[in-house]
Amino acid sequence: MGTPDKPAAELICTGSELLSGRTVNTHAVTLAGLLAELGIPLVRETTVPDDPAAIRDAIAQALARAPIVITSGGLGPTSDDLTRDVAAELAGAPVAMHEPSRERIRLRYENAGRIFTEIAARHALVVQGAAILENRVGLCPGELLMINGRRLFLLPGPPAEFRAVLEDGVLPLLRACAGTPPLRRILMTCCIGESDILRLLPESEFPGPNVEIAYCAKPGRVEIRLTSDPAHSAALERAAARARETLREWIYAERACELEEAVVEQLRAAGKTLAIAESCTGGLAGHRITNVPGSSAIFLGGVVAYANESKIRDLGVPAAAIEQFGAVSPETARAMAEGVRARFGADIGLGITGIAGPGGGSPEKPVGTVVIAIVSGDLARVREFRFNGPRAIVKEMSATAALDQVRRALAEGAS
Amino acid sequence: MGTPDKPAAELICTGSELLSGRTVNTHAVTLAGLLAELGIPLVRETTVPDDPAAIRDAIAQALARAPIVITSGGLGPTSDDLTRDVAAELAGAPVAMHEPSRERIRLRYENAGRIFTEIAARHALVVQGAAILENRVGLCPGELLMINGRRLFLLPGPPAEFRAVLEDGVLPLLRACAGTPPLRRILMTCCIGESDILRLLPESEFPGPNVEIAYCAKPGRVEIRLTSDPAHSAALERAAARARETLREWIYAERACELEEAVVEQLRAAGKTLAIAESCTGGLAGHRITNVPGSSAIFLGGVVAYANESKIRDLGVPAAAIEQFGAVSPETARAMAEGVRARFGADIGLGITGIAGPGGGSPEKPVGTVVIAIVSGDLARVREFRFNGPRAIVKEMSATAALDQVRRALAEGAS
Repeated sequence: MGTPDKPAAELICTGSELLSGRTVNTHAVTLAGLLAELGIPLVRETTVPDDPAAIRDAIAQALARAPIVITSGGLGPTSDDLTRDVAAELAGAPVAMHEPSRERIRLRYENAGRIFTEIAARHALVVQGAAILENRVGLCPGELLMINGRRLFLLPGPPAEFRAVLEDGVLPLLRACAGTPPLRRILMTCCIGESDILRLLPESEFPGPNVEIAYCAKPGRVEIRLTSDPAHSAALERAAARARETLREWIYAERACELEEAVVEQLRAAGKTLAIAESCTGGLAGHRITNVPGSSAIFLGGVVAYANESKIRDLGVPAAAIEQFGAVSPETARAMAEGVRARFGADIGLGITGIAGPGGGSPEKPVGTVVIAIVSGDLARVREFRFNGPRAIVKEMSATAALDQVRRALAEGAS
Repeated sequence: MGTPDKPAAELICTGSELLSGRTVNTHAVTLAGLLAELGIPLVRETTVPDDPAAIRDAIAQALARAPIVITSGGLGPTSDDLTRDVAAELAGAPVAMHEPSRERIRLRYENAGRIFTEIAARHALVVQGAAILENRVGLCPGELLMINGRRLFLLPGPPAEFRAVLEDGVLPLLRACAGTPPLRRILMTCCIGESDILRLLPESEFPGPNVEIAYCAKPGRVEIRLTSDPAHSAALERAAARARETLREWIYAERACELEEAVVEQLRAAGKTLAIAESCTGGLAGHRITNVPGSSAIFLGGVVAYANESKIRDLGVPAAAIEQFGAVSPETARAMAEGVRARFGADIGLGITGIAGPGGGSPEKPVGTVVIAIVSGDLARVREFRFNGPRAIVKEMSATAALDQVRRALAEGAS
């Protein structure tokens, strides 16, 4: 399981909070996903508390098994940050101040108007002799140590920092030692469930021999990953073509990305602007669109019309429509979409209204009932959905379904 | 770490999908949360692929360290379900059919109109001599083996089944051997960094003897957890009182919860309504507020004024203010807060404008510059921030700082 010829990695997560029942550990899924691109398997993950003996034991054992060991956490300034000290001991090197990191942290404190103390400087402590991996997100740099010919990477614990140092520092170094990566085709689908995909592409006949398939489902979207050895590229392409054909309607991208990224790209390509009227999603659709850098070129803004008065006053929804059909109705959703398009002078208007729960449901309109309207040129389309799940899931699925309506309208070439 | 007198548990998750980059492993957070109620610490979590040598190695090592070992996965009928066989080998017992489970599974198939095959019957294979723990959700029962005086629990892998067997079978058995759970005080802080907390409460003198402290930092917030043995409750209360005193300004709750939950609670208690004008956060502040069930009682809505025209048209920001001071300026932020309060007729208006990046920065106003204004009765307060990090972090910190302004205004009794 992992020789110098065939690289393999182990992950060691340190941090008592990861064993406390409050924090879901996402490091393994992040790391394995990125390593898969290089064809390097993650062969074990171990989580230990902030206890030096447990950390030492876990790192030493992993180094005895695998040529690449990656740790997360324990690089900060507090007394429960112990990974660096343990790694120094294993490497037989002292802990030392890394002056360039110290200076970078001092400047960040200065820029933020915060007091730079010796405690803050402790973020820049490293194992002497380690190669330093820059951290563009947070304060502690990553480190690479060679121990008995094996690589020990020390990474910061906060998930955004862990991922950033992996992407910027670790992957480029590992790419050099990785073999030929497998071939891969990715299809990102939304608004179709995994079981419906399996009905359309039964496992008994798809993807066929020599191609592996993996699904990754999140609320409202399923990522389909087809993999093959380079020797079987024709079989891979056949499988990809069949999936593309069968799932055409639901595929929003052929690379790993979020739906909002694909939608912003489409809007930019079409030269169209968007405005969003949100009720039950409370701002989530706008938040997701504005997560995409450069979205200001196509997103003009929106109204979060949480109260009915706002729907009437700010979006011009007829009070009679709300009275007669309800705040969650095709009539209200369409008037919201038209109202926000007119107010912002956008090309496309989106209206989202629904019952996120847990309260507010009725026998006719249970929790999870959501109506989404899109207007674009002469197109006006209204769809009603029933989503299952708690409030957060209903909001997430609603925003996804709304952005999907934009994608579909643009794909159809709505003017 | 864990003696028969002081129980401690290790978790071993088996399953290649958990190391594939597609599946987030939630077993540790589920188990630790349930064990915490009994005061039994989870001292290590290990994930191994469907490889018998790795599974054997992980279980044997865990049994050498901890008196309680719990595994997940590998009990099913397919060829990659290996945990049961490995456990049988470690226990020196054969695998055998558990007839009552077989009969239960047969009945479930019959009731569902499905054909009961010998493959389906394999769900009822167990290690001979194991105590059987019923599974009300799925097909494979859980098992308890005693190996050298240590307890080895074998649990099914699907998260809902893992939790069900834990709750129904494992916890009642462990409750008998658990001691008194520790005492705990939680302080949730926001808009203060971990290093600033350490400056105010130096580790050399805080929390003092017999009290343990743990920090959990997320963007914009730090959770402080103080723990002691019941025998040292006075020391715990002293430490909590000191932290409360020192960090008063930044503490938003004394239970594990999100800032938005605390703010919605405060608004409800004060009988005040809120409206939000968002630029750089794109809807995130509204999204977070509306994540809280019941927020419709206090949140009227908002305007996502992403384009400057919207700031002028929808919020009444003077065009001259934007021209003279910029879209990211105290003048604009305050006009946004006043404009949204007036438009929605809310008690409190919040205005958020900033540069989330990666583009849009300048030497005077670099990426991360964010201005937040709150108006409430006669109070009008504007604060400027410099946040570090990528776009997502700047948005997150901005929304947190904005909600914190609401919290502070309400805590001060703003009318």
